[in-house]
Amino acid sequence: MAESRPIEGLRAIVGDRGLVTGDDLAMRSCDPFRQVPPRARVLARPANVDELSKVMRYCHENGQRVVTQGGRTGVSGGAYAAEDEIIMSLERMTRIEEIDPVAQVAVVEAGITLEALQNAAADQGLFYPVDLGAKGSATIGGTIATNAGGNRVVRWGMTRSNVLGLEAVLADGTVVTAMNRLLKNNTGYDIKQFFIGTEGTLGVVTRAVLKLVAAPRTQFVAYASLPNFDAVLRLLQAARTLPTLSAFEVMWQDYYALMAESGSGRAPVAPDQPYYVLIECMGYHDAIDEQLFMTFIEQALTDGVIADAVCATSQRQIQELWRVREGAEVIVREMSPFVSFDISVDVRRAEAFIEAARARLRERYSVLRTAAFGHLGDNNLHLAVHVGANTVQEESNVERCVFEVVRDFEGALTAEHGIGQFKRAFLPEHVSPGAMHLMRTARGALDPRRLLNRDVLF
Amino acid sequence: MAESRPIEGLRAIVGDRGLVTGDDLAMRSCDPFRQVPPRARVLARPANVDELSKVMRYCHENGQRVVTQGGRTGVSGGAYAAEDEIIMSLERMTRIEEIDPVAQVAVVEAGITLEALQNAAADQGLFYPVDLGAKGSATIGGTIATNAGGNRVVRWGMTRSNVLGLEAVLADGTVVTAMNRLLKNNTGYDIKQFFIGTEGTLGVVTRAVLKLVAAPRTQFVAYASLPNFDAVLRLLQAARTLPTLSAFEVMWQDYYALMAESGSGRAPVAPDQPYYVLIECMGYHDAIDEQLFMTFIEQALTDGVIADAVCATSQRQIQELWRVREGAEVIVREMSPFVSFDISVDVRRAEAFIEAARARLRERYSVLRTAAFGHLGDNNLHLAVHVGANTVQEESNVERCVFEVVRDFEGALTAEHGIGQFKRAFLPEHVSPGAMHLMRTARGALDPRRLLNRDVLF
Repeated sequence: MAESRPIEGLRAIVGDRGLVTGDDLAMRSCDPFRQVPPRARVLARPANVDELSKVMRYCHENGQRVVTQGGRTGVSGGAYAAEDEIIMSLERMTRIEEIDPVAQVAVVEAGITLEALQNAAADQGLFYPVDLGAKGSATIGGTIATNAGGNRVVRWGMTRSNVLGLEAVLADGTVVTAMNRLLKNNTGYDIKQFFIGTEGTLGVVTRAVLKLVAAPRTQFVAYASLPNFDAVLRLLQAARTLPTLSAFEVMWQDYYALMAESGSGRAPVAPDQPYYVLIECMGYHDAIDEQLFMTFIEQALTDGVIADAVCATSQRQIQELWRVREGAEVIVREMSPFVSFDISVDVRRAEAFIEAARARLRERYSVLRTAAFGHLGDNNLHLAVHVGANTVQEESNVERCVFEVVRDFEGALTAEHGIGQFKRAFLPEHVSPGAMHLMRTARGALDPRRLLNRDVLF
Repeated sequence: MAESRPIEGLRAIVGDRGLVTGDDLAMRSCDPFRQVPPRARVLARPANVDELSKVMRYCHENGQRVVTQGGRTGVSGGAYAAEDEIIMSLERMTRIEEIDPVAQVAVVEAGITLEALQNAAADQGLFYPVDLGAKGSATIGGTIATNAGGNRVVRWGMTRSNVLGLEAVLADGTVVTAMNRLLKNNTGYDIKQFFIGTEGTLGVVTRAVLKLVAAPRTQFVAYASLPNFDAVLRLLQAARTLPTLSAFEVMWQDYYALMAESGSGRAPVAPDQPYYVLIECMGYHDAIDEQLFMTFIEQALTDGVIADAVCATSQRQIQELWRVREGAEVIVREMSPFVSFDISVDVRRAEAFIEAARARLRERYSVLRTAAFGHLGDNNLHLAVHVGANTVQEESNVERCVFEVVRDFEGALTAEHGIGQFKRAFLPEHVSPGAMHLMRTARGALDPRRLLNRDVLF
């Protein structure tokens, strides 16, 4: 298509306000960590689903490729846009249509940020459990497309578990409305599953019905050190019987030492044990929840499962304990440059996995620093790897090393961040040939011209 | 295909033991409520996924239609087989490959019954939360294909929430292996979603990884009468803050009167209120769980939310209270013939829905008896309707009346039983045109010759 044609065709649909071009567009980085201007020449921001559908139909008829962007907080390159693509943004579709405190659902347009939705729910005494550091920018549509996780998956599941229904627009402009509000509904295929976690390759999510819960009224957090990995597993098994459990975060010695020595006051317990756990419970019954939590911690101390522990006694202390776990800026300051991983493994094999990954890296690199931590209650480990000043140049080799170990351990290439463009090359080695065939068949059927997020996933 | 050809072709793959024909086949009813012999002439029961894949490829190459049967306990006609179909059964694929008490997963072949899996989990102190009356016959594969629900969805979700991974065979024989064991895994599309709840139209589920939980050690059940529907909603809102809540079952006066007057000893409270609720909590901490439960019930009595209540104090009493809710045989005895419904509605509108459905039926029928009850905590209502001796002849008219009201109330045509063959005619009126288009596109891509469960769904 000639360079000016798509812009004029789009302008006819969405008007001047619906287009972003030139410097205004160049400012919008495709990457949250560094300035990566989109190479696309135009961004369309339709005002409503009708306009969005028309844009998609126009693109379909003209063979115009489309990349959909949410809050551009994804770390897998899913929002990167090439020269021959246009960008679809839902930033003008941010309406909260309804929040119902009895049915406990929210109905929203997909461009709203996670934080705006959380706040609107909180105003009615409700709680949307999906939570991430990037919530101020991440959009509901983006969290759906990537099946975002976060810290409280152990209790409330990933985004997939918190979406009841949605509306999406297919590559050809067809509007698929499946705004289910019911917890139980087996009326045909569960349409939302075609769009949750498929990274925008099967359609653009335009609206959603989200499941809310009553806002928890109690929060208890403890930070513990543990003498060995077997103790971590024992603590996890016991913690899973706490119906109020809302987070179970594990930190390896290399991670904790980094925090404890960072001068940032992040050392709630002595740094003399190989494992550290942050455990959180949230509930609705002050005395009972506290009794349950304290009994649990005391029993773990008595049994020698934990070596030492501190329990937060104020909201400020809760935040301080969480800060130990959320020390990304310390890692950036102390370990840069580094390659970061977001993998899953069987909990029983998490210790062996980390050791095997380090051993594999040591075979290749004389310099090696790692920091391992993660949502072990959901199998999810994050790992930062530094192999010297040339870590960035070595990125794909470092990834190759670690992903080979992931495959040996039957782990997951990505637990919550998604494949995007960055991990695409590794995907076929981590899913079965039949699964690749199924994915290709579904994508080919729904987007036969392969116009949506072409460089994403496979 | 000539009559004898499929049989001989199949015999070459699965051997004599792998075929059922003649009288042995005729005995196998396709319907759990009455004897409906399959019209198909042959049933194939492969010994493993390799044979199953070869059968599917053979059928695909020969244009041979296939109906997959699980335990034949479904009530929507999904297992009915026509003359030009063969039946696929997984009754020889019942192996438990692994039960892991640390990772809390079970790996099984799909032909195993729900009860056998539950028992194997219990032997290791674990619990598979999906539970149904037909568990002795219903297979894991069948519960996956139909996304089965049951009584404890309010806590642990439907089958979809309890499956981590699976293996399935496509119409052309392609084996799709996606035996994920991890709680968090965003490595490509979530393959299992193509097979959960799609009623066997996209493939045959052959193996599964199921998520287990520690077996609950406490169980508390109360049966309460309530003065009005607003009280039911208030009780539900409060109950949702109990992290141990495992069932919230509501019975209308018409249902409770039937039980109380049945002479079967099912009248735990006086039959003088319009609504009745069975509430159950399950947990792991004796004293704390009991305190939470009893405080809740006492508070509801004090607040006037419940008029009267009894709490079970023994396992026998727990079973007796549950029997009031599970009075299917009383309905069969007292109300036959009747038409039964499995719908979902917004909890706020459940009372109005039942009244509107009764009013619509009364316009048409001079005789009308109903019994309404259900898993209100998940929106799910069951309704039995008797309109006189000719109820069976009137079935489709009765369904038309009720489903029109369901549509007016934006409810679901089926909450947990599925569409099968019986509700197929109503499906297009209850999903959007875009959703129908998406379902047809996906099915057409994965089963282009439309050989799998042809008369099911759409």
